[in-house]
Amino acid sequence: MNTTSYSLIRRLVAEGVGTAFLLMAVVGGGIAAQRLSPDDVGLQLLEAALVTAFVLMILIWSLGPVSGAHFNPCVTLIDVVLGNRSPAEGTAYVGSQMAGGILGTVLANLMFELDAIEWSGTVRGGGGQLLAEVIATLGLMMVIFMIARPGGLGLGYVAPAVGVYIGGAYFFTSSTSFANPAVTIARMFSDTFAGIAPASAPAFIGMQLVGAGLALLLVRFLVTPE
Amino acid sequence: MNTTSYSLIRRLVAEGVGTAFLLMAVVGGGIAAQRLSPDDVGLQLLEAALVTAFVLMILIWSLGPVSGAHFNPCVTLIDVVLGNRSPAEGTAYVGSQMAGGILGTVLANLMFELDAIEWSGTVRGGGGQLLAEVIATLGLMMVIFMIARPGGLGLGYVAPAVGVYIGGAYFFTSSTSFANPAVTIARMFSDTFAGIAPASAPAFIGMQLVGAGLALLLVRFLVTPE
Amino acid sequence: MNTTSYSLIRRLVAEGVGTAFLLMAVVGGGIAAQRLSPDDVGLQLLEAALVTAFVLMILIWSLGPVSGAHFNPCVTLIDVVLGNRSPAEGTAYVGSQMAGGILGTVLANLMFELDAIEWSGTVRGGGGQLLAEVIATLGLMMVIFMIARPGGLGLGYVAPAVGVYIGGAYFFTSSTSFANPAVTIARMFSDTFAGIAPASAPAFIGMQLVGAGLALLLVRFLVTPE
Amino acid sequence: MNTTSYSLIRRLVAEGVGTAFLLMAVVGGGIAAQRLSPDDVGLQLLEAALVTAFVLMILIWSLGPVSGAHFNPCVTLIDVVLGNRSPAEGTAYVGSQMAGGILGTVLANLMFELDAIEWSGTVRGGGGQLLAEVIATLGLMMVIFMIARPGGLGLGYVAPAVGVYIGGAYFFTSSTSFANPAVTIARMFSDTFAGIAPASAPAFIGMQLVGAGLALLLVRFLVTPE
Repeated sequence: MNTTSYSLIRRLVAEGVGTAFLLMAVVGGGIAAQRLSPDDVGLQLLEAALVTAFVLMILIWSLGPVSGAHFNPCVTLIDVVLGNRSPAEGTAYVGSQMAGGILGTVLANLMFELDAIEWSGTVRGGGGQLLAEVIATLGLMMVIFMIARPGGLGLGYVAPAVGVYIGGAYFFTSSTSFANPAVTIARMFSDTFAGIAPASAPAFIGMQLVGAGLALLLVRFLVTPE
Repeated sequence: MNTTSYSLIRRLVAEGVGTAFLLMAVVGGGIAAQRLSPDDVGLQLLEAALVTAFVLMILIWSLGPVSGAHFNPCVTLIDVVLGNRSPAEGTAYVGSQMAGGILGTVLANLMFELDAIEWSGTVRGGGGQLLAEVIATLGLMMVIFMIARPGGLGLGYVAPAVGVYIGGAYFFTSSTSFANPAVTIARMFSDTFAGIAPASAPAFIGMQLVGAGLALLLVRFLVTPE
Repeated sequence: MNTTSYSLIRRLVAEGVGTAFLLMAVVGGGIAAQRLSPDDVGLQLLEAALVTAFVLMILIWSLGPVSGAHFNPCVTLIDVVLGNRSPAEGTAYVGSQMAGGILGTVLANLMFELDAIEWSGTVRGGGGQLLAEVIATLGLMMVIFMIARPGGLGLGYVAPAVGVYIGGAYFFTSSTSFANPAVTIARMFSDTFAGIAPASAPAFIGMQLVGAGLALLLVRFLVTPE
Repeated sequence: MNTTSYSLIRRLVAEGVGTAFLLMAVVGGGIAAQRLSPDDVGLQLLEAALVTAFVLMILIWSLGPVSGAHFNPCVTLIDVVLGNRSPAEGTAYVGSQMAGGILGTVLANLMFELDAIEWSGTVRGGGGQLLAEVIATLGLMMVIFMIARPGGLGLGYVAPAVGVYIGGAYFFTSSTSFANPAVTIARMFSDTFAGIAPASAPAFIGMQLVGAGLALLLVRFLVTPE
């Protein structure tokens, strides 16, 4: 194997491992919160939000220097559109994110003594939640690309920014802010707190892509060189 | 359009978008907290405080390099008094903040399937809360301008400082720390956790201006060159 | 007035204002937590701990470059012993901290519509809590002086370290970690969540001084140049 | 005593003091959480997680420049395997961590007016929890060594990363993430929230070593120079 393909494989492994840990945080944290705080859904969501925020932050710090730590097909898509990555590599990234995400859900299920895969029965949707997914994804992409751009605060700030943004967006969006197609798909595989019924996933993913597109327009407007 | 006016429009858009997201966090986070943690008002406030702190921090990181990320007429006013910005631009900033704030409240209402605009019926006031608004705004302006000044820690610290200060001030001030005229006005448009009755708003805004004035005196005393 | 005395007055004002805000956070945050989360003392303490941690952090960022942001006679005492500050200035610092702390308690009482001063009836003490005050103060001084010393991470890290340490020590010490003689005295003046009966204060302050002394020995051992 | 052995003793004292404070946070924080929030185990775990995260972070900032702030035999073991530290010094480190950890548990028991030592009766184990310990330790070691390695973000980020990771892993792993043999042993000595029955400890420690070994392989794969 030559060094180029070895380097690519390292990046794909980093995307897969990172997305797997992200889903362990989302799904496992959700299971723990639901079991341990049965009387208050807000407290469950607070626990889940903090766990996700914390884990996202350190995954980006750990794996960002290897692969960029996208863990999200919307980030990879914008990266390709901006010309930072080839379409072929972007496609491989998305594949790794999908596979890693499902692996993470399976591991979370197993850690909590559930079947490896259980289809979620949680129906999500409606106009408010679909609007929320557009806004959640628009905000997330705005945060990432405004901070990471030349002239922004730089990559060192992206990790806490993404963690903290998602921690907040769990609450302020009515959809609890999926904002990530790979996460949306992986969350179909656990019939627990964080799950989403397969029939609800396509509309969520569609709205996420709309939000990512709007973010691209906004970021371009805000950073166009004069 | 020449580049100067284009640059100004970018800044005004950044102020509007940022204030809109801030109000989505304040109003949307408040709605979620109130619905999901119905049995404990302190837990609701904790959830709302963390969401606001988190979102403020990342908005300032994202949009600060574009517009300064004021999102608050008191900040803009002091900036104009200090000679950092013309009165005309300051006025335009405040307009963007007002418009963005109301837009954010409307979007929060819609995400949670409420009417786009509902006048708040929550009466706020009394001597303790009015004192609290003076102190809350004094503290916020002291934090911002002591850190951002030459010889302070610098702009990189302003974002977490503002987020964390507001997160704390939600609790330690009896008014839950509005500390921002644009936020105060925008919060009239949602009859939910974060709302304020229109009749209560003018006194709150008056106290905020008093606090901002005191902060200006304090900062000038503390940083006068010897 | 010559510039030296003007500079000293600025530092004393910074110590006073900072300690006043610290006590507003401790006492005001405690009142809010107790009123809003009446059914769970742990949740009250969590809210109070986060508020104190948040406010301490930003006070040190804001006022540290002016006065060093001690807000604590134990810090000033060690600073004098280490030869960084004259005994006369140290004494003036402690006076400002005491006055600022009491002012902060009064303002917190007023914000929450209580009498300006109410003597606390909360008796605190016993062997476990006295041991806890030694440990709490030892840990706090170790953190501050190990980080701020030459060869440590530097002053930029002291602010979050102190905030976060106190946030944790509220829970892990059985005394809820007063660890500060000026704060202990000021907390006698509010008969609320954070109060301490005047009769209980001297033993707490004595243990804090013991902890500060042990910290001085430990830090000297750990950083002695070879 | 020559300077080399004096320097080693300083490092061993730092490891011991740090691990003692870590156990005070874990055990003392757990006791406080259990007593003060008796009605919601999730809230107890949230309080304990935040306390542990906060204290770990500041211990690493404070003592990292002295000893590296391992506080964990798995970290020391990988450090020895990577050739950064001699096996003899590594063994001494582990001894200090064990002794400091037990001392911390004893002090926590005493602060909360319990017997100095009480054997825990909390049986932990089962396939899900053992898998969780592998994953928890794998993640922790990945975070530490990916960030601390040459080309990573550097040692300054390790402290918040470790704190925040453990804060999250308390929830997302079904074992509440011990991930540390010295902590596991020390937690046998308190029959409270954080305790583990002596009979359950060996399997936990075995899984932690498996996780550390997997992390070593993963980190080597991800950072192998091309």
